[in-house]
Amino acid sequence: MAGFTEDELIEVIRRLLAEDVPGVALGLGDDAALVEMGPHLGILTADMLVEGVHFERRTVSASDLGYKALTVNVSDVAAMGGSPRYGLVSLALPGDVEASWVVELYGGVRDAAREYAMAVVGGDTSRAEQLIVSVAVTGEVTRGAAVSRSGARPGDRLVVTGALGAAAGGLKLLQAPAHDVAQAVTTDWGRSLVDAHLRPVARVGEGQTLAHSKATAMMDVSDGLAKDLGRLCEASGVAAAVSLADVPVALSLKELADVLPDIDPLTLALEGGEDYELLATLPPDAVSSAASGLAERFGTQLTDIGEVRQGRGLIGVRPDGTERILEPRGWDHFGD
Amino acid sequence: MAGFTEDELIEVIRRLLAEDVPGVALGLGDDAALVEMGPHLGILTADMLVEGVHFERRTVSASDLGYKALTVNVSDVAAMGGSPRYGLVSLALPGDVEASWVVELYGGVRDAAREYAMAVVGGDTSRAEQLIVSVAVTGEVTRGAAVSRSGARPGDRLVVTGALGAAAGGLKLLQAPAHDVAQAVTTDWGRSLVDAHLRPVARVGEGQTLAHSKATAMMDVSDGLAKDLGRLCEASGVAAAVSLADVPVALSLKELADVLPDIDPLTLALEGGEDYELLATLPPDAVSSAASGLAERFGTQLTDIGEVRQGRGLIGVRPDGTERILEPRGWDHFGD
Repeated sequence: MAGFTEDELIEVIRRLLAEDVPGVALGLGDDAALVEMGPHLGILTADMLVEGVHFERRTVSASDLGYKALTVNVSDVAAMGGSPRYGLVSLALPGDVEASWVVELYGGVRDAAREYAMAVVGGDTSRAEQLIVSVAVTGEVTRGAAVSRSGARPGDRLVVTGALGAAAGGLKLLQAPAHDVAQAVTTDWGRSLVDAHLRPVARVGEGQTLAHSKATAMMDVSDGLAKDLGRLCEASGVAAAVSLADVPVALSLKELADVLPDIDPLTLALEGGEDYELLATLPPDAVSSAASGLAERFGTQLTDIGEVRQGRGLIGVRPDGTERILEPRGWDHFGD
Repeated sequence: MAGFTEDELIEVIRRLLAEDVPGVALGLGDDAALVEMGPHLGILTADMLVEGVHFERRTVSASDLGYKALTVNVSDVAAMGGSPRYGLVSLALPGDVEASWVVELYGGVRDAAREYAMAVVGGDTSRAEQLIVSVAVTGEVTRGAAVSRSGARPGDRLVVTGALGAAAGGLKLLQAPAHDVAQAVTTDWGRSLVDAHLRPVARVGEGQTLAHSKATAMMDVSDGLAKDLGRLCEASGVAAAVSLADVPVALSLKELADVLPDIDPLTLALEGGEDYELLATLPPDAVSSAASGLAERFGTQLTDIGEVRQGRGLIGVRPDGTERILEPRGWDHFGD
């Protein structure tokens, strides 16, 4: 950012993000933003993306990074059954980052803000050794409609939106030696995996529909199904049995396994992170209407993958009905 | 953070920050927090502290760092005339940081949250190469009472709370070779400077009083009086003349200048950052009642330091009435 003062950078960002979004009384550029909060219950969440941990600059564009940084926060709002409203985007910038790259990143932030009908109203910038995008998002949810992780009850069904493992597959593809996968990244299935990793989708409408379909617990699958299901069960004080044959494995992972034989699609679906699908528990009689609601309104598949049980721990149920322990393995931001 | 998983760390932080603060429907530990937002206008702000830029671990305790990270955000809320309500604290952690240090940091965050009657309801943690504390704070302000930077009008008086330069003086003391200042840091004046740097005070009550005293513009002095005044004038489309003899220089800076002869107290007061005092513009007839209100309610001095003029730029008025250009110099998070 040589030759760029903080005020100059802020001015460029301010112009880029100046959108006419209802509710913003005062946007970027003052000590703080002033916004209408509305009559609903507020939702607050924060997530940061760290270079070398969550992304590598050589495999992600600035625009995709900005888009994703906002989207993963929106996903947390969706997981409560709410709608996002405002975002704060802070950036730690190494000296070798060009101003144009920063502007492109905020362009991606703006694209995501438009996608989710929200306004980015503030943030902070500082030089640093490592590139970090730190985002906070506020949202709102009708009082009584919010869904936490802790309400799952024995007898509830486990459901998950969309398909799992694609984002982790895309990451494997981006990290593989280029000559192994040169052709794969140009195929439709290769692109779909990479897109799942670079441009995740937050399931906002789906989350609201599930919340209104009597979901007893809900969360987004950010660190892998097994790990996140373990957290949901821990928070609810219950156990869960997952029918392994029913886990919706992203179709493109089969093709990936042909190119990268070390890949096991089911393992990626169970333990790969960053899918940002929603995992919920529903009373058995609520599943089919929730599934048709999601299919009709959003074209999103809802899959019944098992049941909530009394006790503790996760169980995988094989197609022949035998059971095995399912380790709550997945992405750990410290351990990996 | 060897041997510490993300979930274990989050659980420790969750217990530490679990306070019974009104309005929190669901605190730390879920996808997002659920909070009551109240009927007022919302305030949103974010600020991050980066190791090597904003602090050095060898000169700040974890507790002071956590305290300060929240307080500098509260100061931005105060600068709008509002009250802080909720905080989100995210932490990027190098591998050499001990778990006990992280717990101590969140202890400082909790102390600041108690001081300002707010709740810390979320955040994120990740490993990183560099230690960064990234905070977002929400607040609220009575509709119509918020004060931005852009309302200053020619003829308004310039006022500032407290005294200036102490935080920058404290930083100089901490950065000086130990043998030069060994005795100084044990004196009352030395400690007051270091405390001003390590444990800043956000002027929340003062900001509300100024807002209700017809302040036309207000901001906090985080990057130095001259630089921040330049921003206020830029935002308001006005010029300002500062009576240099009236700038409230922190008294302890005179003693510091005896020990470190390179120090000029007035320059530190004009250009030193991190004072977190409030700079405001008031109609001339509102100054004396605002000053007595601040003195009576908070024991805080309010000093009239000059006037808002038509035009652009900053002017320093010498005691003999002659004028000089005042450069809007101060702290730049990229340039320094």
